[in-house]
Amino acid sequence: MIINSTIETILNHRSIRKFKEEPLSKEQIELIVNSAQAASTSSFVQAYTIIGVKDKEKKRKLAEIAGNQSYVEHNGHFFVFCADLYRHELAAEMEGKDISKSIESTETFMVALIDAALASQNAVLAAESMGLGACYIGGIRNHLEDVQNVLKIPRRVLPLFGLAIGHPLDESSQKPRLPLSNIYHEEEYQQDIEHFKGELKQYNQEISMYYAERTNGNRRDTWTEQMSTMLQIPKRTYMREYLTKQGFGLD
Amino acid sequence: MIINSTIETILNHRSIRKFKEEPLSKEQIELIVNSAQAASTSSFVQAYTIIGVKDKEKKRKLAEIAGNQSYVEHNGHFFVFCADLYRHELAAEMEGKDISKSIESTETFMVALIDAALASQNAVLAAESMGLGACYIGGIRNHLEDVQNVLKIPRRVLPLFGLAIGHPLDESSQKPRLPLSNIYHEEEYQQDIEHFKGELKQYNQEISMYYAERTNGNRRDTWTEQMSTMLQIPKRTYMREYLTKQGFGLD
Repeated sequence: MIINSTIETILNHRSIRKFKEEPLSKEQIELIVNSAQAASTSSFVQAYTIIGVKDKEKKRKLAEIAGNQSYVEHNGHFFVFCADLYRHELAAEMEGKDISKSIESTETFMVALIDAALASQNAVLAAESMGLGACYIGGIRNHLEDVQNVLKIPRRVLPLFGLAIGHPLDESSQKPRLPLSNIYHEEEYQQDIEHFKGELKQYNQEISMYYAERTNGNRRDTWTEQMSTMLQIPKRTYMREYLTKQGFGLD
Repeated sequence: MIINSTIETILNHRSIRKFKEEPLSKEQIELIVNSAQAASTSSFVQAYTIIGVKDKEKKRKLAEIAGNQSYVEHNGHFFVFCADLYRHELAAEMEGKDISKSIESTETFMVALIDAALASQNAVLAAESMGLGACYIGGIRNHLEDVQNVLKIPRRVLPLFGLAIGHPLDESSQKPRLPLSNIYHEEEYQQDIEHFKGELKQYNQEISMYYAERTNGNRRDTWTEQMSTMLQIPKRTYMREYLTKQGFGLD
């Protein structure tokens, strides 16, 4: 076996949604940010900023924006990960150059998103390895203009998700993932649709049983039901327009 | 001190660009994929697929696409991380539902990118914790239609980046990151532009010295020079159109 403590940390991940009111220490915060910064970054762009929120009123507002998720308010520290091209615009200004076309391209938008996400996953694992728990909060994307106001976010910066980190109070269980063979294909994308669907059906049974066991049979929905119901109605449909206004052109 | 072996692995990261010709074992590949799958996923969507490439001819083609990067061809295993909404379209078909509006929204595009990126960073850390090295390959985005042909990628699936993993042969040095205070802001986005620029200038000196030391003084460029020069000319300008064709609407 080649399991080591890093892989144990990774495989043991579960989202924590209840934390003690104990704040993270300065040393913990710095190690988490250092860890985030150690991630790979596309062509060295480092196209992200992390905002750490301690202020109770700000946290309360963010919790409201995220759909009244109490763990946005109550945790050890709340981080907001942003895709950031403002720094590059300043850099270009310092060098007397114009990079707006590049900033407003879909490619650069993708680079910034990926950069921020890689950094955040390092932050999560660093936190979990210290015995802390974490939960990603996509809910802040419900109303990004409000997030922008709370955190005084300038143009060319896009809040992507929050990360609630803290001393865990609950021990949630791990949801079974899609079968490895459905996520991981060798040499080329899985071409056999019936086989692909067969895997999803088998997974449906597993997920349905998982819910049934945890809810005394009250809930038995499958993955394909859940996904197709959730995705029937497009969410956060203001996003495209907001991005353009915020200086991410998607050109 | 609260450093542990996971944080050591994280902080010790450097991109490896030279590998032994020794293939990864099946066990290593599975642990890497299991690790990827253990990452958080937005509302359980698991919106990504990983394609593992061993075939020499396919690797050679991918290396060519990525701009003749030899480590795309020569490594222990080559992974391609894709944002994937094809699986959800199949799920909706199985359930007799239409989710195309949602699939074609900017929000879902962002979710899939972030999902894939989180998974990939787990994969990198799992590999590094086993003593393997890794390098992200954004270069496959140079010609995504060619990647699509090589890996038989269907509509609604978007190859994002490659990941070359293997037994390391070189020991590259770590590039100094932006100062923590520039990446991490407390309570709100750093409002003092002069202070912000001052940090970038100080960082410029650090980066310039870093290059000078490594090149016997031949190279002395700063971060703001590098970024503003690189971003002056938009890259991969076909992306927007390609995404639309590939079924990612950005609506």
